Amino acid sequence: MSKNLTTRSEDYSKWYNELVVKADLAENSGVRGCMVIKPYGYAIWEKLQGELDRRFKETGHSNAYFPLFVPKSLFEAEEKNAEGFAKECAIVTHYRLKNDPDNPGKLMVDPDAKLEEELIVRPTSEAIIWSTYKGWIQSYRDLPILINQWANVVRWEMRTRLFLRTAEFLWQEGHTAHATKTEAITEAKQMQDVYVDVVENIMAIPVVKGYKTETERFAGADETYTIEALMQDGKALQAGTSHFLGQNFAKAFDVKFTNKEGRQEYVWATSWGVSTRLMGALIMTHSDDNGLVLPPKLAPIQVVIVPIYKNEEQLQQIGNKADELIAEFKKKGISVKYDDRDTQKPGFKFAEWELKGVPVRIAIGPKDLENGTFEVARRDLLSKEVVAESVVIDHIENLLNDIQENLFTKAINHRAEHTTQVNSFEEFKEVLETRGGFLLAHWDGTPETEEKIKDLTKATIRCIPMDQPDEDGVCVLTGKPSTKRVMFAKAY
Amino acid sequence: MSKNLTTRSEDYSKWYNELVVKADLAENSGVRGCMVIKPYGYAIWEKLQGELDRRFKETGHSNAYFPLFVPKSLFEAEEKNAEGFAKECAIVTHYRLKNDPDNPGKLMVDPDAKLEEELIVRPTSEAIIWSTYKGWIQSYRDLPILINQWANVVRWEMRTRLFLRTAEFLWQEGHTAHATKTEAITEAKQMQDVYVDVVENIMAIPVVKGYKTETERFAGADETYTIEALMQDGKALQAGTSHFLGQNFAKAFDVKFTNKEGRQEYVWATSWGVSTRLMGALIMTHSDDNGLVLPPKLAPIQVVIVPIYKNEEQLQQIGNKADELIAEFKKKGISVKYDDRDTQKPGFKFAEWELKGVPVRIAIGPKDLENGTFEVARRDLLSKEVVAESVVIDHIENLLNDIQENLFTKAINHRAEHTTQVNSFEEFKEVLETRGGFLLAHWDGTPETEEKIKDLTKATIRCIPMDQPDEDGVCVLTGKPSTKRVMFAKAY
Repeated sequence: MSKNLTTRSEDYSKWYNELVVKADLAENSGVRGCMVIKPYGYAIWEKLQGELDRRFKETGHSNAYFPLFVPKSLFEAEEKNAEGFAKECAIVTHYRLKNDPDNPGKLMVDPDAKLEEELIVRPTSEAIIWSTYKGWIQSYRDLPILINQWANVVRWEMRTRLFLRTAEFLWQEGHTAHATKTEAITEAKQMQDVYVDVVENIMAIPVVKGYKTETERFAGADETYTIEALMQDGKALQAGTSHFLGQNFAKAFDVKFTNKEGRQEYVWATSWGVSTRLMGALIMTHSDDNGLVLPPKLAPIQVVIVPIYKNEEQLQQIGNKADELIAEFKKKGISVKYDDRDTQKPGFKFAEWELKGVPVRIAIGPKDLENGTFEVARRDLLSKEVVAESVVIDHIENLLNDIQENLFTKAINHRAEHTTQVNSFEEFKEVLETRGGFLLAHWDGTPETEEKIKDLTKATIRCIPMDQPDEDGVCVLTGKPSTKRVMFAKAY
Repeated sequence: MSKNLTTRSEDYSKWYNELVVKADLAENSGVRGCMVIKPYGYAIWEKLQGELDRRFKETGHSNAYFPLFVPKSLFEAEEKNAEGFAKECAIVTHYRLKNDPDNPGKLMVDPDAKLEEELIVRPTSEAIIWSTYKGWIQSYRDLPILINQWANVVRWEMRTRLFLRTAEFLWQEGHTAHATKTEAITEAKQMQDVYVDVVENIMAIPVVKGYKTETERFAGADETYTIEALMQDGKALQAGTSHFLGQNFAKAFDVKFTNKEGRQEYVWATSWGVSTRLMGALIMTHSDDNGLVLPPKLAPIQVVIVPIYKNEEQLQQIGNKADELIAEFKKKGISVKYDDRDTQKPGFKFAEWELKGVPVRIAIGPKDLENGTFEVARRDLLSKEVVAESVVIDHIENLLNDIQENLFTKAINHRAEHTTQVNSFEEFKEVLETRGGFLLAHWDGTPETEEKIKDLTKATIRCIPMDQPDEDGVCVLTGKPSTKRVMFAKAY
């Protein structure tokens, strides 16, 4: 197949948009800002869900399900949260259509079916969940509550991009309730670590752990822990956040418990989430001008076998050999596809599976059968080698591990090359424009300076990195004293 | 714990409502008609999802995700489907809230943020999916498309009941596209069989396979295949449907393909779904006046171990023994919980796990440690026995299979006792009122008679059973000739 894929250097943004569609991951739908996640894209998301879900359960969480709708009166109960989401939410006002008398065959909203109270399609579920927790929590014995929900949410974003920013997206949202502040903070940090584990070890995307400035915090949180990834174009992508919500929602919904001493206290809360946005991070971190590159741990198809033949007899022999291989791969838990379509030539198939990011390709021709060898290609390096049949299974098992590691190392190196300590505002602007990436700079700690830098450069403080050492310095903009560098970048 | 559960004979409906809440499965939310599925209920749903999902994939289907919203113009494209759902749908008309100038701290719908076209929250996804398939299908090579979606849907029902009928519910909906009518019908029947497999062999609920009359068909279908279950109160519950949609949606959305001969044809379609309603069927089929009874294959906890002790030393010894058992159960893939809460007495725990339907309970006391025995209780029969430690693991493994089988047999027997051939309308009414259940009766095949019987008795034709033999007879109402009995019942 001919790829006709825009290259990254030509137009990174266009390259991404084309790639998502051409690799059959997702497409825009007939509904403004909403996407269709196609089977191949969804299969990757399912694998990611599986990895996350297992870890949530291992850390003591259970899944549950809460309503899609938030009545307006609940929505507005926690003021900051309401303010944060009110400007971009989908609102249900009616519950019936009727025939339009002026347009035969058409329907219209029935004005007699107006809801008494409007319903907001959840942009996040703190409000609906905390109004429910109120009924579940009386005593310290009812705590902690450790719940996760897999759900769709809607934020009426004006500018949307497949996976990165869509009006409806899929996510998981954890919502926990605790007796003490310390326990809640420990939980929020634990979930940040779970995200680090999955994003680094499964998605092969290195991240910086940190916390958000007050300006960048989740609406309604006392502290937002974040993990920040760096894309190939030098822009940052927030890959997951975990919030310590203090007692804000407990106070808004009057959720108290009787502690061991018999006194009433407000409950402490966390929430944490990652979304289908991670698919965007995955695509942008590893892929190249030939298409998608998938880490083996998330690839729906890890190995593809393509037969190269001139006649039916050869195809038959190759098919028998492929069956043997498939049986061996299955024993190892390696997913494999035999592409014996007779409607396409091998060259087309090679290009298609490259575009779709399958980590390993095996080609089998008549010569290979004679010699007892296979041609094995790896997607990440676009390299090929000839491997003896006797060792091919073990070889490919190792190769999959190598590819997983190589992708992570490559991304680490890219990040190292694009992380710069800058010490003046001139340097800040110059590095941002020429090299992009993460800028470690001193900042005076005020929202005003943060805002001004954003206005002047479009860079925001992605996080205050947790492992950044204390260091005396002066703010790059104001020259006021600072004791720690923070991390700036332009961001998705 | 004291259960205070209404008994089935006192008030079956009240028993059900109480049980769902007391067993911690679900509860009503602050949103009219929407439920909260609690962790214990959701864990059962997850197991059921797993069983279904595996079978969907084994039969060649992939998961994907389509938008939550259906623009009104797409919604109304297939007339029958639109008509079927227009009267009870949630409609999004605005996309922003603003501060209410008359009520400080309150929000109001911003009249300036009205959508150009209203969006319907999907009651089912045929419209949005077929408008998408139009872009995916050009040639016979693009067929079949075999896709399933796990999603939430909304139908603005006026009278709701936990799991059985809720405004929002969770379900899966398969949507397939085929080149030929035969292939589509084969697919629809195959998925009916998948449902039979899961509902009978996993949920232990026997079902009657059949197809719906024209009146009872899915809006937009040419044929609806159904599986019908019988609840303990003698009412039927539709447990899953699979629809042959003909070319109705292809025509509504102009989806054609070029066949092998180069001619343009409309695509053939199916859709099929089961929902959280199945949870209601599960509860109502097996449970008793002591609470929930779960088939082992769906029980989140299959075995609970309760220690009986007078002092810390005993608890310690019992704990050690429990650890040994837990390790053995894990090896067998049996899920087990050790309930060593020190806040509750054993009697309370027994009652609680009974209420929650855990299939097997092991009690361990000091005497048991001395004798090398355990007390093993099975939930379905409420019976107890003493089992030697040396054989307890194998014994319980067999017991779980026995319970699964016993529940199915019991339900089969109940159904047999409540399935009656009736030959006159007097008999029809009498059996319906006294014994309820499935009534096999001759019917003249007209919608008018079907409607009249419904008006007179509240019984509907649940299905025309597939395995019902041809038999000459006369319609119970009109006396007109009939060649096959159909199955009537009052239904949920």
